[in-house]
Amino acid sequence: MTRIGIDIRGGDHAPLVVWDGLSMALSELKSDTELHLYGLAEDAPKAPSNTKFHICAEAIEMGEHPVKAFQQKQDSSLIRGIADLAKGQTDAFASAGHSGALMVASMQILGLQEGISRPAVVSLFPRLDGGQTVVLDVGINVDLKAEQFLEFASLGASYAKAVLGINKPKIALLNTGAEESKGNILYKRAHELLKENCGGFSGNLEARDFFQSKVDVLLCDGFTGNIILKQTESFYALSKELGLNHDFLNRLDYENYGASPVMGVRAKVLLAHGASGPKAIKNMILGAESIALANFVDS
Amino acid sequence: MTRIGIDIRGGDHAPLVVWDGLSMALSELKSDTELHLYGLAEDAPKAPSNTKFHICAEAIEMGEHPVKAFQQKQDSSLIRGIADLAKGQTDAFASAGHSGALMVASMQILGLQEGISRPAVVSLFPRLDGGQTVVLDVGINVDLKAEQFLEFASLGASYAKAVLGINKPKIALLNTGAEESKGNILYKRAHELLKENCGGFSGNLEARDFFQSKVDVLLCDGFTGNIILKQTESFYALSKELGLNHDFLNRLDYENYGASPVMGVRAKVLLAHGASGPKAIKNMILGAESIALANFVDS
Repeated sequence: MTRIGIDIRGGDHAPLVVWDGLSMALSELKSDTELHLYGLAEDAPKAPSNTKFHICAEAIEMGEHPVKAFQQKQDSSLIRGIADLAKGQTDAFASAGHSGALMVASMQILGLQEGISRPAVVSLFPRLDGGQTVVLDVGINVDLKAEQFLEFASLGASYAKAVLGINKPKIALLNTGAEESKGNILYKRAHELLKENCGGFSGNLEARDFFQSKVDVLLCDGFTGNIILKQTESFYALSKELGLNHDFLNRLDYENYGASPVMGVRAKVLLAHGASGPKAIKNMILGAESIALANFVDS
Repeated sequence: MTRIGIDIRGGDHAPLVVWDGLSMALSELKSDTELHLYGLAEDAPKAPSNTKFHICAEAIEMGEHPVKAFQQKQDSSLIRGIADLAKGQTDAFASAGHSGALMVASMQILGLQEGISRPAVVSLFPRLDGGQTVVLDVGINVDLKAEQFLEFASLGASYAKAVLGINKPKIALLNTGAEESKGNILYKRAHELLKENCGGFSGNLEARDFFQSKVDVLLCDGFTGNIILKQTESFYALSKELGLNHDFLNRLDYENYGASPVMGVRAKVLLAHGASGPKAIKNMILGAESIALANFVDS
């Protein structure tokens, strides 16, 4: 049996879109998947009969300070969900809520994997050859040390192996040019460290070769990663606005991915876009199910 | 009369594509525009009869160390072109050659404008409303101090005024979220400084709102700026590969812009993509002509 925890109060449009996404997901989940829903008392009557509802006292709002929210809202839907995951009562937990609070709670309650100093958030970018590139970090580590790129390489490689089934992933560093000497101080040092210490490292990848590359794992800091993730969203929005149609463009739609796994913590946590609509929530739940079944967390 | 200096030996495919681009540009230039060509003796016979050819002893290759190239190759096409610009023998100089050497030569020979600590390179991004966003820096300042964002704001605003005719440009900071608290240490500090000191500052712009925005000047560090520039190129390449057609997509093609003005130095210098083809070179030359006619350098 696979048990998935879901934050009913997470996201800019919660709880409405979470209910909508949940009802869309129900028919596509495996028959032995059990949903654990974390929400307020007033939400409980809406829970489908085959789910388990956990009544929480409060919800974390999007504008709150992450550490304060963690300290003061232990009985919130987000923190209760993580706490139950830590106790082994669920196999994965997913939320479209406060990303900072989710990180603090994951680090504090679940703890970090050995050798990892901070969690990282993964996003999948489609490639023209039909494959996918695992990109990390896409939003948490905005001020990082060059050494963290080695951690990202290890986390990205285990994700590529466990979820995409790639045994020897090709790893690259996002940079402003292919040459070793390219980039800023941080990226030059990261390149040196990766070259010395990372087996599958294939050098720099320029953003211009994004969709055409054969790279399985692409490393970047969370600031740059978040920018390229959002620029990809802007391309998708642009293509819709221009009336362009192509199967590949739909692969750029974040709603089709739904949620990003949080790597480096000792349990399976997924974070969805705060602006998620029902389709993204549906895919967050289905993503949580497949992550729960994959064997990549070194807990 | 407008006098434009052109580096015949600048670019990955020089001199061939420079000649091709030049012959494409000739018929579109204004009748009183005079071209000054800087190349090797062997190039001289190819110069059109109505141009002035300056025979140089050498060329700077793409892989050279910028400072060494500047010190050791004073009689190169790139440095001779900048030196003649400094002497007032031309009104603008354009090259698709070594960007680092061009920067060093511009700073050393032309000097910086008052209050500017480093040059910045501008790129124009198309907006869906038909306008353009002046983005800087897109490649030179990869490790910068927050104070430089104020310099970029001033350089970008004068570009928007002089070249795009926008009197009160709307200025924004590229960031990972609209809220003031978003970004890394550098961008948070830049936001504070801009808010306090920059008149037209309208706050953060997320990369997701790129094409839909009304922003006239978008500020970023040269590392991030180069990444978003190249990701835009990747999207253009992708759209061609997928067989998508739309007028707006052609506005994403860097070959239609040709060259980026180098802002902050005391004369008009344009830098084109090293990989420029004939069309990009043609537009580099036409761009140099319009920049030469615009009144934005505080020399």
